[in-house]
Amino acid sequence: MPDPAHPKIARPDHEILDVIRDRWSPRAFDADRDVADADLRTLFEAARWAPSSRNEQPWRFVVARRRQSPDAFAAMLATLTRKNQAWAAVVPVLLVVAVRTTHEIDDLVNSHAWYDAGQAVAFLTLQATAQGLSTRQMQGFDPAAVRAACHMPALYEPAIVMAVGYAGDPSRLAIEYHRTDEASPRSRRAIREFVYADIWDNPLP
Amino acid sequence: MPDPAHPKIARPDHEILDVIRDRWSPRAFDADRDVADADLRTLFEAARWAPSSRNEQPWRFVVARRRQSPDAFAAMLATLTRKNQAWAAVVPVLLVVAVRTTHEIDDLVNSHAWYDAGQAVAFLTLQATAQGLSTRQMQGFDPAAVRAACHMPALYEPAIVMAVGYAGDPSRLAIEYHRTDEASPRSRRAIREFVYADIWDNPLP
Repeated sequence: MPDPAHPKIARPDHEILDVIRDRWSPRAFDADRDVADADLRTLFEAARWAPSSRNEQPWRFVVARRRQSPDAFAAMLATLTRKNQAWAAVVPVLLVVAVRTTHEIDDLVNSHAWYDAGQAVAFLTLQATAQGLSTRQMQGFDPAAVRAACHMPALYEPAIVMAVGYAGDPSRLAIEYHRTDEASPRSRRAIREFVYADIWDNPLP
Repeated sequence: MPDPAHPKIARPDHEILDVIRDRWSPRAFDADRDVADADLRTLFEAARWAPSSRNEQPWRFVVARRRQSPDAFAAMLATLTRKNQAWAAVVPVLLVVAVRTTHEIDDLVNSHAWYDAGQAVAFLTLQATAQGLSTRQMQGFDPAAVRAACHMPALYEPAIVMAVGYAGDPSRLAIEYHRTDEASPRSRRAIREFVYADIWDNPLP
């Protein structure tokens, strides 16, 4: 049960699922606490049941665990930007999310492949929240290096690299901006700024 | 509380969130049961708190309600394939999900815009499940017609059209395949088919 006064807990205008309200993306992870095998599998079980275009499930995950596979973890870590490496070096798990960008049936472009992968990862992140785990998705990585590090076939594209673990002590973060960001409130557009009735820019009554 | 013996309830190999286990995409919706205003807003509140690249929240929603806005609803319905129209004509709410495909700060392509929209919609669908609502996402629509129907600016692309409402009686579906599909079990790849350890195709231990 997270502290309801924590600055990252969403302040929704309408009552939403606990796991949506409580999910946020820390940079401070607990270096000493590993993710249990069964917990990790449950994350993928959650991703597994996401909907997708033609049920093609175009998402793939490559897992690098710091303790169990130090070489694979180091290779994955090295693909990140220096700023991401500064905090991600201590996380127990790094995940690559890869997207198959063509349909299996005809090799034509799957326009919804990235969209579907986003849905699967969203399910995974909410499942993680339910288990007390935290996640942070990163776009700051070298795609060619990720592809090489995990031997990703050409049919797939790396979408994000994600850190998974237990939230840790922000004061241990090396970069000052990362420390202050850890305590700044989350912000979002108001509903009227992204939901319209009937036609564009017409607010919901 | 859904019937645990319902063929669409996922049979997960690991314990997952109820809303993930119970979510599925019917075509049979209850024509007589509308979605309350507050329930609809809560869906967008859930979408609102999804993560996104640079927190740009590139998702937009256009809502067409059958009873409140029959003209807008009819215009949206007309953009769907004939097969989708066959079941979607009675749903209380149709939603267009639009994606802003460029970054706001520099107008460069946002490679993760569709991915992020998928995450927001995933949050929305799980929130809907928590409220006893069902959703079905459709790719079968005419994008130019959707753009015209809701006056969508050129900066945005329509990703999907979604039906929202309460699940209904499958025997009322006009197309036989739709009736039988409503009772067929959901299927997904096994975890070993989409999760790898360290490098591609290497199964998780």
